[in-house]
Parts: sequence; C-alpha cells; structure tokens
Amino acid sequence: MYEYIKGKYIGINKDYVIVENSGIGYKIFTSGATMSSMPKNGEEIMLYLEQIVREDFIGLYGFDSKEELEMFKLLLTVSGVGPKAALSLLSISRVNNLKYAIMIGDEKHICRGVGIGKKTAARIILEIKDKLKPDELVDSSLEIDTKDNENVMALSEALSALIALGYSEKEAESVLKKIDKNDSVENIIKNALKALMG
Amino acid sequence: MYEYIKGKYIGINKDYVIVENSGIGYKIFTSGATMSSMPKNGEEIMLYLEQIVREDFIGLYGFDSKEELEMFKLLLTVSGVGPKAALSLLSISRVNNLKYAIMIGDEKHICRGVGIGKKTAARIILEIKDKLKPDELVDSSLEIDTKDNENVMALSEALSALIALGYSEKEAESVLKKIDKNDSVENIIKNALKALMG
Amino acid sequence: MYEYIKGKYIGINKDYVIVENSGIGYKIFTSGATMSSMPKNGEEIMLYLEQIVREDFIGLYGFDSKEELEMFKLLLTVSGVGPKAALSLLSISRVNNLKYAIMIGDEKHICRGVGIGKKTAARIILEIKDKLKPDELVDSSLEIDTKDNENVMALSEALSALIALGYSEKEAESVLKKIDKNDSVENIIKNALKALMG
Amino acid sequence: MYEYIKGKYIGINKDYVIVENSGIGYKIFTSGATMSSMPKNGEEIMLYLEQIVREDFIGLYGFDSKEELEMFKLLLTVSGVGPKAALSLLSISRVNNLKYAIMIGDEKHICRGVGIGKKTAARIILEIKDKLKPDELVDSSLEIDTKDNENVMALSEALSALIALGYSEKEAESVLKKIDKNDSVENIIKNALKALMG
Repeated sequence: MYEYIKGKYIGINKDYVIVENSGIGYKIFTSGATMSSMPKNGEEIMLYLEQIVREDFIGLYGFDSKEELEMFKLLLTVSGVGPKAALSLLSISRVNNLKYAIMIGDEKHICRGVGIGKKTAARIILEIKDKLKPDELVDSSLEIDTKDNENVMALSEALSALIALGYSEKEAESVLKKIDKNDSVENIIKNALKALMG
Repeated sequence: MYEYIKGKYIGINKDYVIVENSGIGYKIFTSGATMSSMPKNGEEIMLYLEQIVREDFIGLYGFDSKEELEMFKLLLTVSGVGPKAALSLLSISRVNNLKYAIMIGDEKHICRGVGIGKKTAARIILEIKDKLKPDELVDSSLEIDTKDNENVMALSEALSALIALGYSEKEAESVLKKIDKNDSVENIIKNALKALMG
Repeated sequence: MYEYIKGKYIGINKDYVIVENSGIGYKIFTSGATMSSMPKNGEEIMLYLEQIVREDFIGLYGFDSKEELEMFKLLLTVSGVGPKAALSLLSISRVNNLKYAIMIGDEKHICRGVGIGKKTAARIILEIKDKLKPDELVDSSLEIDTKDNENVMALSEALSALIALGYSEKEAESVLKKIDKNDSVENIIKNALKALMG
Repeated sequence: MYEYIKGKYIGINKDYVIVENSGIGYKIFTSGATMSSMPKNGEEIMLYLEQIVREDFIGLYGFDSKEELEMFKLLLTVSGVGPKAALSLLSISRVNNLKYAIMIGDEKHICRGVGIGKKTAARIILEIKDKLKPDELVDSSLEIDTKDNENVMALSEALSALIALGYSEKEAESVLKKIDKNDSVENIIKNALKALMG
C-alpha cells in the first residue's frame, strides 16, 4: 500500500529505525547501509517502503534509495531468501558491491549474509544474475550528465511500465518508436498510452 | 476500508501511480485509461479506491472515475478474472468501449486483455452482459441536462441503497412511490428510511 | 484498532456512508437507523467503529451511538449472524425496539431482518436475552438526571473494566466497596486499580 | 508497523484506553499499571505500541513505558501466554515486581494472573528467567547518574542492534572494542556499521 514515508527521524532500535509522521512513530526494518546513513535525530527523512503482509504480521521495510529497495525486492524473489536474510545481505556491503558479487558469481562474499549458506548463495546468483544490467553498477550517486543515458533510462522505464500494464514487448517497442522520446518518463508513458488506446 | 484518496500526484512507477497524502506516498495500481489522464506531477488529484486484501497482500486499486471503479469491481466478480487481468481490460480501451464490447458479445476485443483467453472472454460476456444497462453507455462525461434523467438516476441509486440495506424490491418500490422524488439522492434515501422505520 | 472516527460527512453509497478524514474518504458500513440520522453533506460527524478483519477483507462498521455499536457487537456473538444480518436487524427498527423484541421473545419482529429465519431469530433471543438489562430500555437520549442512576452506571462500568482486566467479580466488588464512589468512572477505576495493585 | 502513538487521552473503556490522533480514536489494549497512571482526559500522552495481527484480528497493545512493552513482548514468547494473559500478569503488579517474582521463581505470585495456572507459571519462569538481567531490576524511573552505567546500557543496546542485523556476537564485540564508546547509542551503532561495512 505504501511507496514511501516522509517524517522525523527518531532513532535506531535493534534492527529497525523509527520515523514519526503525524504523531505516529512507524517501525521500519532496514539494512545496515541505510542505518549508517541516517542523519541526526529529529531531522526530516524519506524512506522508500515495501509493506510485507503475512497471516500474523504486517510490517514495513524501508531504504533511503530506490535502488536498495529494488534490490531488496529482487532478493525476496529467490526461494529461501526472506526479509531478514535479504536485510543481512544488504548489511554486509553496499548495493553496488552486492550486485557486483552476484554478477561475477562470488559465493564467498554472499555467504557472509546471516542465514545464507552455499546453496542459497548459488541460487541467488543463478536466479538474479541475468536480471542485473552491467550499467546498473555505475555508482548511482554519480550524476549521468550525458543526455543519451538519461533517455536510455527514461525509455527503459517507459517500456517496463507499458509491459507491466499488459502490452506485449513488441506492441510497447513499436509505439515507443513512433513517439517523441526527448521528454520526461511521465510524458513518454502518457503519449504511448494515448497512442495505444487510440 | 477506503472510498477515495485526495493527495498530490507524484508520478507513475511501472503499473501503479503514487499519490502523497499527509507525507505518506501511497502506491495505487491503476489502468492505462486513468494513467493517461493524470495531470502534471505535484497537482492535487482524487482517485476512487478499492482495497484488496489477501493473506499475503494488502493493496489499493484506484481510478479517476467512479464508473471505471465500478467496472473494475464488476470484472472481479467473474471467476478467473483477478485484479491484474481486470486492469489490463481497462487498459485496452475506454470503459464505454469495453461495456459496448461486452454488450454486443465482441470476444475478439475482450481477448486483447493480457491473460484473457477465449474462455474467460466468453465468461465475462455471459456473467456481466445482463448487469450493464444500455443508458450507462451514454458518455459519462456528457452532462445529462434534462431533469428527468437526473431523477431516474437518483431513484435507481435510492432503490439500490434500500435493497442493499435489506429491504425487498417490493418494499423499496412501494415506499419510493409515496415520497417526494424531486429531491437529492441523499434526501430520497433518508425520507424513505424514515417512512420504512416508522 | 479503531474506536471512532471524526470527519466530514460525504454521503451515502448503497449500504455504507463515506466520512472524510485528512483527505481520505473512509467507507463505513452502517444501519438504516444511523443512515437516516446523518446530517447535511459536508457537516462534521463522529461514528463509533468496529473494524472487522477476515482473510480477504478489512472493513469498518460505524454507528452514531455507542449503544447501537454495542448492540451490533452483541448480535455478532450469535452464531449464524454476520455483519450484514446484524446491520439489517438494526435497519428494521430503532435499537430500543429491537432490544424490547428480544426481551419479550417477539420472533416475528426479528424475522423481518434480511437473512434471519425462525431458527436464527430463536437463537438470537436465546443467546442475547439474558445479556440485556431492562433499565437499558430507558430511552438513552433521555438524560438521567438523578445522581444515583449516574453512580449506578459509573459503578457498573468500573466493575466491568476491572473484570475485563482479569480481577474476579469478588475481588472487584470488595475493592469498589472500600473506595469513594462519588466520582467519575475514570477515577473510580484508577483508585480501584491502585488499591488492588497495592 | 507502529512503535508509538502520540495523541489526546480520551478515557478508559473496559480493558482498553482510547487515544485520539488526527481525529481518529485508536483502541489500545493495556495493563492495569498503565491504566492507573493515565492523566486527566484530554491531556497529550504517548504510548509504546505492539501491533498484533491474526487472521481475524488486527489490534494495538500499548504501554506508557518501553520497559513494560518489552516485558509484554517477552511474555508473549512463552507458549500458552497470549496477549490477554500477558496483560493480566502486567495488571497484578508493577513490572519490577513481576521480573523479581520470575527471577526468584515465585510461582504463587505469577499464578495470580488470570488464565495462568501452575504449569504456565512454571514455564514462564523456565523460559524467561535467563533473559532477565539483575540490573534491569533497578527502578527504571531512578535516573542512573553515573556515566559508566549509561555507557554499559548504550553498549549493550549497540551490541543487540548489530546482532539483530546479522553480525555474530564475536564480530560485534570486536568492532565495538575498536571504536570510541564515549558517545550516544546512535553514533556507536553508526560508527560500528561503517567499520564493519568498510
């Protein structure tokens, strides 16, 4: 239900941080990476969220970058990797290093995560390796200033939005070819939808 | 639990839009139709909601018209049609066109939805066709200016409210005959209830 | 999780009313009695809530009096009576009349509720009759001005609070004898707890 | 999902208190100890929360001290002790006395809790005794003014945070030895994480 939360950073408690919004303190499980980048208590922060719902549990997992959230969600798709194991993987090293370890098949690095044995590490590499694109390794904090890269990212985001809405890859690519790509992701998606829905 | 949300439109992400309310970004799955009608980022919007609860999922589905929300809920009543399939049906064409396709039994049109085979398309036509009234095809954006049509709509809304509360169709119709119908839906329902509860 | 909601009354939709709080429209299922007492659209109202949670449903049921909420919860304790049937019972007559019908065993009156057959009506009378106290029939809107009645109500509320916290009836009654009863429910409960926890 | 709630204290109702936040009255089950320390109606309070989720129930349990909340959560880990039994244990005496009774194995004291027979009392002592540290018995309201005790508490909190994140006890202790311990819990944890994540 939630994409992100903005609020006052209250502090760390065991394996979660507390963010206050409208007088309610929210309990947000997170990784060592996000924890170590938290500001002074009382400062405003924004965390990107994933709500996890089970028969006897409703909890929030949050990260201070979309990239780390996406990696968390990707790790959860691997059978045998639950939220706790995914968080510990994201606590042993920065997201980039973890992606790099998966891409080059570095099982030893991945086994440092709590509850991650050789078998699970091998499965993580097997199931995730192809889903990671080399250019994702570029340090996300490094502003990509060349116009083309921005368009490449915008186009790939628009493509995945159209596919998520149910259009085939062929339909999505053919409509994207026809419309003006020198625009924001927002507008590329809207114009493509208008063209598709005629 | 939720009828609608008012908030700041933040943008599109894959198959959902993000709406911020009181500092929390809500993740709202929606159709291509609603997505393509979203305003510029940062503008205030209102989406009509359906909360879907499963053992391991709590999510919000939202639309910028009640009509599209009602059609989404109607599609979910057809066995074999889940939220994703319903959204894709609402992404292949405007609600009116989808209703028209169902009314005239146009399976080919309906099969364009992702995950919708011939069998499901036939079941959608079979189970929904009789629930759609021809006058619903009138372009909902076209203001019906004649007083009678408004009363017809108000009366039919009042009738369905009384039936939903447990009164028989006969009881509801007989009380509606006795009271003043030149009024808002609100007052027609209240006066009818007062008459019924004596 | 919720005791009540304060917000702007938006209107009736089939078998629920809509109340807006902090920009979110809440969907609150209710009875004919509460519906017929709703103010003009846009006015501030307060509804007493019961949240019902199932594997595939989370919903709010609300009433404009605690009395009607308590009766709704009492009806739900009867096997075979779900929220919809309980609402329809509360739509056929005012709470007082329904209580009166149960006390005198008037099955015919109770069978007017939708989904309520003779067997369920008999079970409602059997299981609820002893839980209703005759003085509850006094029209709750009638201010009881005599001091004693207020104390009787305060004492019975304090007694049920102590029992709900796990003290035996005997323990609760003996401590209530010792403390000053010419006080608010609030203070009677607090003083009793302090005495009990020594 | 929730760590705490700040809001207006509305009053006691049977075995819960009502706290209003942003116009919504929250229903918070609590103990006799917390109830008896509630202020006058209308005053601002803060309760530390535990959200309990079941297939047919979502509820909030709250306490006016972290210590009482931690004890409530500890009691819930004992098989056969549910929220109601845990609350009744926290209603028969202050948290310190309950801890003391568990440490010295005083079954008779523990059996005073509702629904707590000899067997459950023995299990509580068996499963919890080792998890309680004698220094926790120090009256939490007594400000520990000596610098060392504060550091001992800060270090033990930092240790449990690192372990909860997945580091082994050995890894956590060795990094804590290397960093400056004359600091807040916040900074000890962050510096340790930075050292560990290199």
